[in-house]
Amino acid sequence: MSELLITSPSNPRLKDVVALRKRRRRDELGLTLIEGYDELRLAVDAGVVPRQLLYCPELASAGAEVAQLVRESGERGAQIARLNRAAFEKIAYREGADGIVAVAALAGTALDDVATKDDSLILLAEGVEKPGNLGAMLRTADAAGVDAVVSADPVTDWGNPNVVRASKGTVFAVPVATAPTAETLAWLRARGVRLVAATPDTRTSYTDVDLTGAVAIAVGTEKEGLTGSVLDAADERVAIPMSGTANSLNVATSAAILLYEAVRQRRSAAPHTPR
Amino acid sequence: MSELLITSPSNPRLKDVVALRKRRRRDELGLTLIEGYDELRLAVDAGVVPRQLLYCPELASAGAEVAQLVRESGERGAQIARLNRAAFEKIAYREGADGIVAVAALAGTALDDVATKDDSLILLAEGVEKPGNLGAMLRTADAAGVDAVVSADPVTDWGNPNVVRASKGTVFAVPVATAPTAETLAWLRARGVRLVAATPDTRTSYTDVDLTGAVAIAVGTEKEGLTGSVLDAADERVAIPMSGTANSLNVATSAAILLYEAVRQRRSAAPHTPR
Repeated sequence: MSELLITSPSNPRLKDVVALRKRRRRDELGLTLIEGYDELRLAVDAGVVPRQLLYCPELASAGAEVAQLVRESGERGAQIARLNRAAFEKIAYREGADGIVAVAALAGTALDDVATKDDSLILLAEGVEKPGNLGAMLRTADAAGVDAVVSADPVTDWGNPNVVRASKGTVFAVPVATAPTAETLAWLRARGVRLVAATPDTRTSYTDVDLTGAVAIAVGTEKEGLTGSVLDAADERVAIPMSGTANSLNVATSAAILLYEAVRQRRSAAPHTPR
Repeated sequence: MSELLITSPSNPRLKDVVALRKRRRRDELGLTLIEGYDELRLAVDAGVVPRQLLYCPELASAGAEVAQLVRESGERGAQIARLNRAAFEKIAYREGADGIVAVAALAGTALDDVATKDDSLILLAEGVEKPGNLGAMLRTADAAGVDAVVSADPVTDWGNPNVVRASKGTVFAVPVATAPTAETLAWLRARGVRLVAATPDTRTSYTDVDLTGAVAIAVGTEKEGLTGSVLDAADERVAIPMSGTANSLNVATSAAILLYEAVRQRRSAAPHTPR
């Protein structure tokens, strides 16, 4: 396995890596950044083959594990570059960098390529603005075993380094797609997936609605909620009951509560419903 | 109502405000910072009387509402200072500041002053490190209607500006206490509160355990989980079932799923269990 050595912070390859922090550049090249050992390990385990892997032995705290990940990636065809600290600091995005950054293809497929089945659980996030929220939802979606996360009319993109980071790399493990809201609604209808929309403007609790079978759970932005198009298209509108004074939950928290109620219903239904 | 006018960024009062970003200073004076209209509104509605309120009309987007909050606070005895933009920028902590910062007494009471009842729902967070996670748990705890949040052996404090911010001000609305783990466990026992501890190392799902009655739900750090002391003292150990590859949920997300399962059980038990 050949390894490139980069010791100058002004090496033009580093500039190319840094350029991927801009969405426009990510979209042009269809590439994104994965920073951090845990995140890259998870992505590689999910089948991602990095195009480039840049690492800094001086910063890599998990030495043997990093060496193994570097070897694996190199064997699968990634271009490997070893950087000294000065060069690595040029490309490190987050604080407490652990000495590993990779360039890989953007996550995400077209809606038509998302597989659905009779009991698909789908998370539909409309208009999400904050990368941290999108990433947190992905992490929960991975744990809840959802079949896909669809981001409708998003303000942020799957390749945003903060999405990758907050998702702990699960953005590469959970099937994800982006589409306009109208197209997403048509796709759900065509696939026979029931739409359950979260909104404060209903007295129906999410626990009183059947969340088994093929279901998409939709959440909107924290400020505005779901748009009228999604609310109008919904088979059920549900609220999460709230006490207290602030009267609002974080959107990723709401998604977690709703998804895990679906998981609970499916688990308790399982003995009675042969699949 | 008298109003101080501050137009110099080097005014010593501003330095006193900025000094409260340090925990040591907060602990010395028993004071904390509340930044942002929404957060301060919620705190004031929860009964907080700011000692000082510093505002910058040039930055205050919600003009009339801010004016009303300033008036109310002044009437209740807060010292009011009007700042120009240069002076305000000296004390603004977060990006996109909306022109309002207050100094108020630290949130939190002693364990003995926390009221419990037959069906108290308590969140026990042990060893929490990230202010954002503690804040997020408070926000969820407020929505779920918990009776108290106890932070045991915490690394972060209730007065951390990022806790106040991530909690959206609910840190002043939900009864909160801090205590060593051993003391917290003794307090729960003395009050007859059952302890349910979240851990991946059990096959008991959180949905299969009775979460009605007086219950404390305990969550640990993301990395290490709960300590042996809490796990040993627990009446029940429960896991959140996880599919997927990352096999971990954010601690605040786990807390939300557990608390809302308790809320669900209590709501569905309510018609049968007269209180």
